[in-house]
Amino acid sequence: MAHALDFDDTLDEAALHTGVAVIPAVLAAAEASGTANGEQLIESIVCGTEILGRLGMGVLNSPGDWGWVYTSALGSIGAAAAVAKLLGGDEDVIWNAMGIAYSESAGNCQTSTEGTLAKRLQPGLAAGSGVRAAELAMAGLTGPREFVNGKYGLASLYFRGEYDSSRAVRTLGSEWLIDRLAFKPYPCCRAIHGALDLVLEAVNAGKLRPETLRSMRIGGSAGVHKDLGLPLEQKRRPASLVDCQFSTPWLVALVTVLGRGLKVQDMGPFHEADPEVTRVVDLVSTYSDPRIGVLEGAQKAVLSFETLDGETYETMTNAFYGSPEDPMSDATLIAKFDDCASMAETPLRPEAAAAVRNSIMKLEDIQGATAIREILAPLRRG
Amino acid sequence: MAHALDFDDTLDEAALHTGVAVIPAVLAAAEASGTANGEQLIESIVCGTEILGRLGMGVLNSPGDWGWVYTSALGSIGAAAAVAKLLGGDEDVIWNAMGIAYSESAGNCQTSTEGTLAKRLQPGLAAGSGVRAAELAMAGLTGPREFVNGKYGLASLYFRGEYDSSRAVRTLGSEWLIDRLAFKPYPCCRAIHGALDLVLEAVNAGKLRPETLRSMRIGGSAGVHKDLGLPLEQKRRPASLVDCQFSTPWLVALVTVLGRGLKVQDMGPFHEADPEVTRVVDLVSTYSDPRIGVLEGAQKAVLSFETLDGETYETMTNAFYGSPEDPMSDATLIAKFDDCASMAETPLRPEAAAAVRNSIMKLEDIQGATAIREILAPLRRG
Repeated sequence: MAHALDFDDTLDEAALHTGVAVIPAVLAAAEASGTANGEQLIESIVCGTEILGRLGMGVLNSPGDWGWVYTSALGSIGAAAAVAKLLGGDEDVIWNAMGIAYSESAGNCQTSTEGTLAKRLQPGLAAGSGVRAAELAMAGLTGPREFVNGKYGLASLYFRGEYDSSRAVRTLGSEWLIDRLAFKPYPCCRAIHGALDLVLEAVNAGKLRPETLRSMRIGGSAGVHKDLGLPLEQKRRPASLVDCQFSTPWLVALVTVLGRGLKVQDMGPFHEADPEVTRVVDLVSTYSDPRIGVLEGAQKAVLSFETLDGETYETMTNAFYGSPEDPMSDATLIAKFDDCASMAETPLRPEAAAAVRNSIMKLEDIQGATAIREILAPLRRG
Repeated sequence: MAHALDFDDTLDEAALHTGVAVIPAVLAAAEASGTANGEQLIESIVCGTEILGRLGMGVLNSPGDWGWVYTSALGSIGAAAAVAKLLGGDEDVIWNAMGIAYSESAGNCQTSTEGTLAKRLQPGLAAGSGVRAAELAMAGLTGPREFVNGKYGLASLYFRGEYDSSRAVRTLGSEWLIDRLAFKPYPCCRAIHGALDLVLEAVNAGKLRPETLRSMRIGGSAGVHKDLGLPLEQKRRPASLVDCQFSTPWLVALVTVLGRGLKVQDMGPFHEADPEVTRVVDLVSTYSDPRIGVLEGAQKAVLSFETLDGETYETMTNAFYGSPEDPMSDATLIAKFDDCASMAETPLRPEAAAAVRNSIMKLEDIQGATAIREILAPLRRG
């Protein structure tokens, strides 16, 4: 469920989400084993984030190039490492857990291309795979060690040789990837956030108004253009919530008309939209901007538009709002948490949401095996 | 567990195993739902075999080319179709089940390259994935339909365009793939069986004797040579049971010395072997024979050898023993079943094994929801 709104953290330089694969796996294993204190939870999550993020940093192409969802295809390996560490596995067990998880690495972009719910399921399957792999490794099952660079490792099998392990380990020991995570202000694909930042900036500066717009173009990396901008006519008429979350023209038009950032409740499909949005979306097109490298899809975006009276405008961003370079404040993050909690299927009462949030904020102080109980108890009481 | 001895059925023209992915999924779902009679079980297994086998027949390369294990990577889709049919899903549900299963299609040759136990786990993961996908589809979750030829379908993502859907459907409606299954006489990789047939033929004809052998060469397809013959020194010294099952030099030497077909108890690793086998294995090498196409690795093999007194010998086979063209008799299959049953972790008493076998042989006659109970009850009583 953590991935259902596409609102989870990302590691922009690896084009993947770490939390949605690692954290549910760690929570599930900690709850089942009943042994983890706060520090162990943090250690395991940091470990899984490090493994998953670094595996992703080795990839030299973008998800749109072949069609892997890195969060899922690599997420099972990160989750397996995290859970094996949590369960007290030694080095051999952690290696085996990762190798076993590699034996079911999967997750493809076809699920979002067709706007199916399986898109949201994939990271959850990776988390489950990680838990199972770690439990099997703890029970003595062996997995391959050369799951990255072996004859049939992921570098050759999944990434057709476009993989560089030295990129993966470059900052190992000097930088924790958990400090490099970005948090999303808007519930849609991270690679669209830069375009939305630029649109909001132009709206706030009074330069961009829907009623005076003649045309608008959004530049992205080749992969982002291919995946989130094409086919253009289909992207302009998203048929489902998943389609909306992965359509650059749609989201850019929506923000232009609303004149503010997006919330979960804004993201309806085409046929539920304001007629003004459906008018503006036909003015928006996308292109592949040669200034943006294949791995920079979640770091760089270009906006250009022309008004009815012939004025033109072009601007580029190099730091998406929510990234470590332009972070959301703690207060904004907490507001996002509370907003999401209020929209749960069974809405959380404000005091229950506050209790969960407070447990998480002081996680390192929770000693003994009570951390999971403290986090989850308010959820169970509703 | 059904894949643990690498002794399960194969569809030679697709280089995969269907039963190990489809049958456990159907049995598990039938047991959990408690509704299937014998005819429904058969229908579902036939359906899953058809889907999985035909998906595999579309592939234009061999597992050794990229490194996918087709049994696992395509098996989840076949198992999903079988279970969705068993659970009474309509056409939409069966499509969704297959699309959801595609979202976790996986299984790689690195697990066997390193001789790990994860090799044996992979088809079981595919079976489990199929059950889960079908249950999620029954609950309304959607998956992609274009999981074969879509932008990120398996033809492009998994097989890099080396996929021809027309091959998959060529005999659809005129031939049931379940009639095309091969059964293995020996517990090792199917692609080695042809070489073993030829060795046995030469031994039985009195031409091949270990004490007069100077050198032996085994020809196979490029993929079979790469995967089961190389690296040669490593293949001559298999370190685990999985290594033995995937080493052409080792198995050929073993059969040459034993002078008979292989049984489960013959397959020990290098350091447990007869010194005569370890002597003969160093006389065996493998090569890629240009007469054998990339998709014929489980249909064609060549044996050539030279004796100490300079005689040479070469022969080729086009029909492996156990294939539809050279089938094992029912009596031989029953003997194989009884042999395996006697070697279970908790060995099955002969009368219990006979009761299971008799239920399976009259499966179409078992009416009502008792089929699974009749098959499994004797197992539970030991």
